[in-house]
Amino acid sequence: MSFSFLSQLHCPKCHETYNPDVIQQLCTCGSPLLVDYDLASLKTQLKPADLVGRPSNLWRYHELLPVKSPEHVVSLGEGMTPLLPMSRLGKDMGIEHLWMKDEGIIPTGSFKARGAAVGVSKAKELGVEELAMPTNGNAGAAWSLYAARAGIRASIVMPVGAPLITRNECAVSGANLNLVNGLISDAGKIVGHAVKAFDLFDASTLKEPYRIEGKKTMGLEIAEQLDWKLPDVILYPTGGGVGLIGIYKALRELAELGWIEDKLPRLVAVQAAGCAPIVKAWEEGKTDSEFWADSTTVAFGINVPKALGDFLVLEAIYKTDGCAIAIEDDELLEEQKKIASMEGAFVCPEGAATFSAARKLRASGWIKDGETVVALNTGSGIKYPETVKVEVPILDPQDTLQRG
Amino acid sequence: MSFSFLSQLHCPKCHETYNPDVIQQLCTCGSPLLVDYDLASLKTQLKPADLVGRPSNLWRYHELLPVKSPEHVVSLGEGMTPLLPMSRLGKDMGIEHLWMKDEGIIPTGSFKARGAAVGVSKAKELGVEELAMPTNGNAGAAWSLYAARAGIRASIVMPVGAPLITRNECAVSGANLNLVNGLISDAGKIVGHAVKAFDLFDASTLKEPYRIEGKKTMGLEIAEQLDWKLPDVILYPTGGGVGLIGIYKALRELAELGWIEDKLPRLVAVQAAGCAPIVKAWEEGKTDSEFWADSTTVAFGINVPKALGDFLVLEAIYKTDGCAIAIEDDELLEEQKKIASMEGAFVCPEGAATFSAARKLRASGWIKDGETVVALNTGSGIKYPETVKVEVPILDPQDTLQRG
Repeated sequence: MSFSFLSQLHCPKCHETYNPDVIQQLCTCGSPLLVDYDLASLKTQLKPADLVGRPSNLWRYHELLPVKSPEHVVSLGEGMTPLLPMSRLGKDMGIEHLWMKDEGIIPTGSFKARGAAVGVSKAKELGVEELAMPTNGNAGAAWSLYAARAGIRASIVMPVGAPLITRNECAVSGANLNLVNGLISDAGKIVGHAVKAFDLFDASTLKEPYRIEGKKTMGLEIAEQLDWKLPDVILYPTGGGVGLIGIYKALRELAELGWIEDKLPRLVAVQAAGCAPIVKAWEEGKTDSEFWADSTTVAFGINVPKALGDFLVLEAIYKTDGCAIAIEDDELLEEQKKIASMEGAFVCPEGAATFSAARKLRASGWIKDGETVVALNTGSGIKYPETVKVEVPILDPQDTLQRG
Repeated sequence: MSFSFLSQLHCPKCHETYNPDVIQQLCTCGSPLLVDYDLASLKTQLKPADLVGRPSNLWRYHELLPVKSPEHVVSLGEGMTPLLPMSRLGKDMGIEHLWMKDEGIIPTGSFKARGAAVGVSKAKELGVEELAMPTNGNAGAAWSLYAARAGIRASIVMPVGAPLITRNECAVSGANLNLVNGLISDAGKIVGHAVKAFDLFDASTLKEPYRIEGKKTMGLEIAEQLDWKLPDVILYPTGGGVGLIGIYKALRELAELGWIEDKLPRLVAVQAAGCAPIVKAWEEGKTDSEFWADSTTVAFGINVPKALGDFLVLEAIYKTDGCAIAIEDDELLEEQKKIASMEGAFVCPEGAATFSAARKLRASGWIKDGETVVALNTGSGIKYPETVKVEVPILDPQDTLQRG
């Protein structure tokens, strides 16, 4: 049986198709490309039970991933992150069946590892020797490190305001790191010029087709970890939105394979109030978003004023009867503390926002009594230490413990 | 079949035995206690093949863990961390079969999660409501967060010099955190007084018997991941040494179960040159270490001047024909960069030290041609951002990418 059932690439806007055996970036119409598989054939050859005993990382789904030869897999052991019951927090917000998919427990400490693992592996298979990308921090860190493992040279451009730790991750990998006085959109322009000038592979979000395939494994894992019974609601912190697009794609592929039979979960795009272009578009019933000027939020990973895949995110929301919701910074920081003190998980601000959103949607009745809810935490709180205020007594060795 | 095959506690020094169904701390003789299981009975009821398909976390070995009832398990999904081939780095140091057990990919970002998960779970089972402990950072972070999940109150005392991120982790968990102007030994004295004054459970390293059981799962996993064929050498960064004691205990239990047949791996205790009491004791052929005055190293987790379990660490080294070796800070920082740029893994300084040690032991011939070597990385480099120097160009939006 083939390692991958990859068949072709297609454009979701103009429906042009492309050969996946050579390097492709955007469609000539400017849209991102999506990856197709021969699902009809796979359906007859693979069953869920065949996955039992496979390695507990995202490559257990290799038939549904684009890398054709196992020798090109570049892995740091990413995937099969824990799906944790959040009983105490769930009770606190009136959601009986609340789960967290914890993407902090993954190489590089964020879900960006999934896109990087699959994107870099496929780039290696296609012969890429040098890539470039703009980043808000975590994606650059992940792509730098996976590129290093693959022996691919990486040029990364990151806002000076991005989390410091991600800067160190890029630096230690030996990547060619540049900072910019500006936003990720400014970094994107610099990368765009460099890609043309130096003929580099453009690894910007959705400008290559394979990062989505890595991200979609979150959806595959949620389904498998819940024994192929889908939750009612999945909440996802949405910047570029690739994870949401990927989860939606995964669930549709599983339905086509006949591995799931339930109605798809209602997908919720969670944004920061200081940068909520998808929420605004959804509230206005539009299929595209507008650039969000002067965006700002502590949840740096979702500070994306205009996402290239906005139309795909909105489609996923509309098609699943989902919604989009914005959270204030002070709300999500308050939720971050509750999650740690009630459940022992130190989540990133973006992840905390999904729990704030669940709380609000339960209070409004949008999440109904008895529903099963999965919130995505996209990274470890360790990467954002400045979000926690610490005021503690400092003792001398002869002092006595302050009992608090 | 019983969930746990726990039978009793025993003292490795005076051989006294203790009841594991009530709270126990040290032996009356002052030694740490070790946990025994009914291995003869387990041997007839469980085979390695029975593990296939179990959840990919350390609780897959629940028969060999001390928690008697699954309802007391406090888990954040810890364990079954990746065992990664390090081909390029291995080639660079002349070790053909070099592996890294990556304990950065675990809740709280360090191997301390294992001891905390099992220690807190057992404390919960025994009815503990409040615990206290000194820490160099990572253990306090892990115990704070697991205690929060268990609903146990935690008091933590940490040197002001401990990594800042671990301070934030304790704070966000809602633990009662105190800092001390001094070393972990000073923190230990403050905790000792508080334990007596307030009748708290003492969760200090080896002062409760169950943390070793969590750590030993690293040994169980290495054996299972290598399909029950043991490596020739395992290198471990050694501060308190609980991991090394645990791995040795795990391998002996597996041998008694008949699941492994090879000679045990030679265990190597890796220390920092600025704090190397075990190395000194081993070089002098002693069975105990002496307090190391004025200790200092960037690898903060192994800055332990005198470990309570030193005699157990030394026994594990002697019994397996292992060794102990000290690494300078500049050597391990250099190795940290090589690991990231050659293999894409950003490891902690303690983890980097094990690779420096492998390099030296290969150069000296102690590691022989063709041997299989496993180096433990005990935590994510993300938690120690200050170990990486970053000097990068800062661009304005209209600038051009510096190609490096």
